[in-house]
Amino acid sequence: MTKSTEEGSLVGQVRRSPGPTGEVPPARTAPSQTVVGQPGARVRTPGNDGWRNHAEQYFLSHGDALWKAAQAVPPLNRFLNRTIVNLAVTKLPARPRPLSTIAPYTSWPALVDRTYTGRHLPPVEDQESGRASVERTASLFTREPGRTKLCSRSTVLLPYFAQWFTDGFLRGESEEPRDPRRNTSTYDMDVNQLYGLNPDVLAQLRAFEGGRLKSQQINGGEFPPHLCRNGKIEPEFSRLTPVRFDTLSNEQKDGLFACGSDRANGQIGFTMMTVLFLREHNRIAGELAERQPRWDDERLFQTTRLILTAMLIKIAIEEYVNHIANFRFRFRMDPHGLGNPAWHRQAWISIEFNLMYRWHSLIPSTLQVGGQEMPMGQTIHRSPLLPEVGLGRLIADASEQRAGRLGLLNTDAGLGMLEAQSIAVGREVQLASYNDYRAYSQFPRITDFRQITADPAAQQLLSEVYRTPDDIDLFVGLMAEDPAPGAILGPLLQRMESTEAFSQMVVNPLLSPRVFHEGTFTAWGMRLIHTTGTLSDVVHRNIPEESEQFFIGMAARQTAR
Amino acid sequence: MTKSTEEGSLVGQVRRSPGPTGEVPPARTAPSQTVVGQPGARVRTPGNDGWRNHAEQYFLSHGDALWKAAQAVPPLNRFLNRTIVNLAVTKLPARPRPLSTIAPYTSWPALVDRTYTGRHLPPVEDQESGRASVERTASLFTREPGRTKLCSRSTVLLPYFAQWFTDGFLRGESEEPRDPRRNTSTYDMDVNQLYGLNPDVLAQLRAFEGGRLKSQQINGGEFPPHLCRNGKIEPEFSRLTPVRFDTLSNEQKDGLFACGSDRANGQIGFTMMTVLFLREHNRIAGELAERQPRWDDERLFQTTRLILTAMLIKIAIEEYVNHIANFRFRFRMDPHGLGNPAWHRQAWISIEFNLMYRWHSLIPSTLQVGGQEMPMGQTIHRSPLLPEVGLGRLIADASEQRAGRLGLLNTDAGLGMLEAQSIAVGREVQLASYNDYRAYSQFPRITDFRQITADPAAQQLLSEVYRTPDDIDLFVGLMAEDPAPGAILGPLLQRMESTEAFSQMVVNPLLSPRVFHEGTFTAWGMRLIHTTGTLSDVVHRNIPEESEQFFIGMAARQTAR
Repeated sequence: MTKSTEEGSLVGQVRRSPGPTGEVPPARTAPSQTVVGQPGARVRTPGNDGWRNHAEQYFLSHGDALWKAAQAVPPLNRFLNRTIVNLAVTKLPARPRPLSTIAPYTSWPALVDRTYTGRHLPPVEDQESGRASVERTASLFTREPGRTKLCSRSTVLLPYFAQWFTDGFLRGESEEPRDPRRNTSTYDMDVNQLYGLNPDVLAQLRAFEGGRLKSQQINGGEFPPHLCRNGKIEPEFSRLTPVRFDTLSNEQKDGLFACGSDRANGQIGFTMMTVLFLREHNRIAGELAERQPRWDDERLFQTTRLILTAMLIKIAIEEYVNHIANFRFRFRMDPHGLGNPAWHRQAWISIEFNLMYRWHSLIPSTLQVGGQEMPMGQTIHRSPLLPEVGLGRLIADASEQRAGRLGLLNTDAGLGMLEAQSIAVGREVQLASYNDYRAYSQFPRITDFRQITADPAAQQLLSEVYRTPDDIDLFVGLMAEDPAPGAILGPLLQRMESTEAFSQMVVNPLLSPRVFHEGTFTAWGMRLIHTTGTLSDVVHRNIPEESEQFFIGMAARQTAR
Repeated sequence: MTKSTEEGSLVGQVRRSPGPTGEVPPARTAPSQTVVGQPGARVRTPGNDGWRNHAEQYFLSHGDALWKAAQAVPPLNRFLNRTIVNLAVTKLPARPRPLSTIAPYTSWPALVDRTYTGRHLPPVEDQESGRASVERTASLFTREPGRTKLCSRSTVLLPYFAQWFTDGFLRGESEEPRDPRRNTSTYDMDVNQLYGLNPDVLAQLRAFEGGRLKSQQINGGEFPPHLCRNGKIEPEFSRLTPVRFDTLSNEQKDGLFACGSDRANGQIGFTMMTVLFLREHNRIAGELAERQPRWDDERLFQTTRLILTAMLIKIAIEEYVNHIANFRFRFRMDPHGLGNPAWHRQAWISIEFNLMYRWHSLIPSTLQVGGQEMPMGQTIHRSPLLPEVGLGRLIADASEQRAGRLGLLNTDAGLGMLEAQSIAVGREVQLASYNDYRAYSQFPRITDFRQITADPAAQQLLSEVYRTPDDIDLFVGLMAEDPAPGAILGPLLQRMESTEAFSQMVVNPLLSPRVFHEGTFTAWGMRLIHTTGTLSDVVHRNIPEESEQFFIGMAARQTAR
């Protein structure tokens, strides 16, 4: 199905939007205004998103010295942080949302059953008209072999951290066939990547001594215990259910680590993060045990977990979010300074948030691993590489290599199936179009394929897959948008992502006024949280077997931030 | 154990409070200041609770004409409602609380695992010193046979409604032996009394036709279907698990109705409320089906449930809460008018809230049932009385009979075991003392038994059971306090109850800005919610088999409100 064969029959057809939720997407523009290169049309350039959006973006990403001076004054810093976090989050309506994926109307389960993923806009029944098939649409993503387009600012550590971090709360179903409407999220950012999704799994991971998690020493470094022996899961780990276990050889099975996440042994970047935070957990537990000699294992474990969780949220805001936003203003984790925003409501993952976090084009086709070039596919189920190369070295390798650039035509062929899956999910749950979500997120609708990307090849392909810009799938549009200069994500992706990320992170109970204090974390724990702001901090206190000082960062060495 | 035998050894002993939650109860006063009738002590009278509490109480319960005039002006009414709800709720600190009953310190499960009941104050280990045994303490409650002290304002409909309504969210464990730390609450006020605690139960209760619940006609009235035949649960109701089923005779079993709550067939007042709202559900579904001819069963059912739930919250606020508060100011359900209070956080039942809702002294020893006097014990497991006497008649009987007065020495001997259970639970979960909770709730600590009640017999008994007023169990203190003139509950009970009730009800997702509108309820449903304010409204549109106009009310006929 291509644009040319469909065009005649479709002009003027408008999709039906269900009425009764009070949240109907704006009417679509007439298709006749939206054809590529239509003579005489005034075409905005990509990122030309209206004066207000531009003013905000300009203001926040210029005036380095002014922002620095302002943020050096604590009360002003707090005020700015509160104001700008609010500005970011209130671009989209606050939860609770009237709909989830359970039904096209509001019902009691839609309001309370969080095993069904939430949704921002009502379903749109017609998912076919004006669009090519899923497979053909997915071909928009395919990278030419050997032609990874590079990101201007980020290292491979960015997608590694992003995947690991978000897997703690953006969790689809694990069992096949997956129901795209459902999720296995625990919602409250509990570092289940490390601690497992439920108490039974956690009980098998704990050492029940000194508050520690089970671990072993290999090549002088600390690693999780092995899950299997001779291809069989050890009885002590009977509750662990790693994904795709049955597809592995016995040799591969024997290399798996026993970790909280069922996805922990997938791509090596994920495993690195797990091992890093396992070490940090056991390190904190040890320090705490020295300071609290009368605490039992249970209390040491629980308090260690709270410290580590708060610390991870802090790194997520202060290193990760700041890197992505790339403002001159720097966000801070300031639990007592956010006031009482109206969007402070129970976390509920949306299907749109789930789709928008699939940044496969950030993964280069060849990865630097221990000084070698390794095809991406060979870094899957390769946990034994960690003790071989060393944790610090591996994270440093990821920090030295530039990530791919987010966009079309830049996903390794090996991951193409995942892009197709995302497009299929969007259509299965009947998402409204990219343009509807632009309007919902306070951006002007686009009227020409040239407004989404400056890349002529991508423009051409988009115009072949879609009849008009109004037909673009949300997922494709999110990934196709050119980032603003200096940005990593396209404007819509960045806006939806930061709204969701802040409004889900800040509601964590650890950050509430009666919890975020020394009574919860101990004075030592509180200081540790305050003095940790980057992954580099965590890495360098957890690699006793490697004496080197590494460069560790999501921002590439040559760039400022 | 009595005061006199214990006194010498205990003077000066102070209970230990755990430190690290930042919420330590104030230090106890020295016992020597607190003995009954100590010569020269300036003794406050009961309810003498400090000028601010008095001023607020006075202001709200006087000036009828002024309040009426003010509430007739919509914007002023909204402002007053918001202000006074806030005033009530902010007497206690807002959720999230740092502790639950799972551990004496803050841990991740304490912050997220709502199967453990929350708690306001940290546990206090010593639950023995200065106190008599549970059994002896429970004897404080025993009513002399034939001597029910009556409430000045309320009818038996008040405890009937209170028990039924609160059972929807204050749910301990059902299975014996109960763990007092845990609960089976669904939290979000979902009328599980009618719809069951989970989807499996609900599926067995639904007719799957016209959005209705299963029902049958008996004596011209609509009732739930019978649960059993020949003493065996019908296969279609295999998921229903009524409490104490095994203790019933086959004849009793055959009289049980199949309802959402496992406690639906206990006391007849509970069954009345269930039948009433079952009828209302099916009535709404029928009306909705006429207005929405294209809706399927599922949508009719879901929307009916939402309308009924919102309506029940409205009745709870506008009839029940207003009756209890007894202010000249009248609370309203005003979802769009409450602003964004800082206490608008996820509902979490506390163990204190659970205990404070055990108002057994409100139940007279003899009940009016169909014009007869019936000993209270004979109204348990008597569902067949409903079709015999008629639903309207039974609710009218409850509305004509005065409730018991809340206080000591006024619980029917048949319910004494329940009072002992409540005292035992409080000690098992190591609650802080009554006086600690007074301080926590912004009341002065009492220093003399004469400050809790003016009843000399109760004063005397209290001084025999407790060494000092600082030793009084929370549960006993809550129930022993004399209500202020015109009030039903003692000051501490009323304050803790209204804080909890509002802060749990108002967070219902149905009352949120993107949900509370015609898109959710339909325009007709919205009007129905707006025009229903009392149980009497609901009763009189659901008793076609009884042509009478009954007096239905929680406030006795002779009293103003």
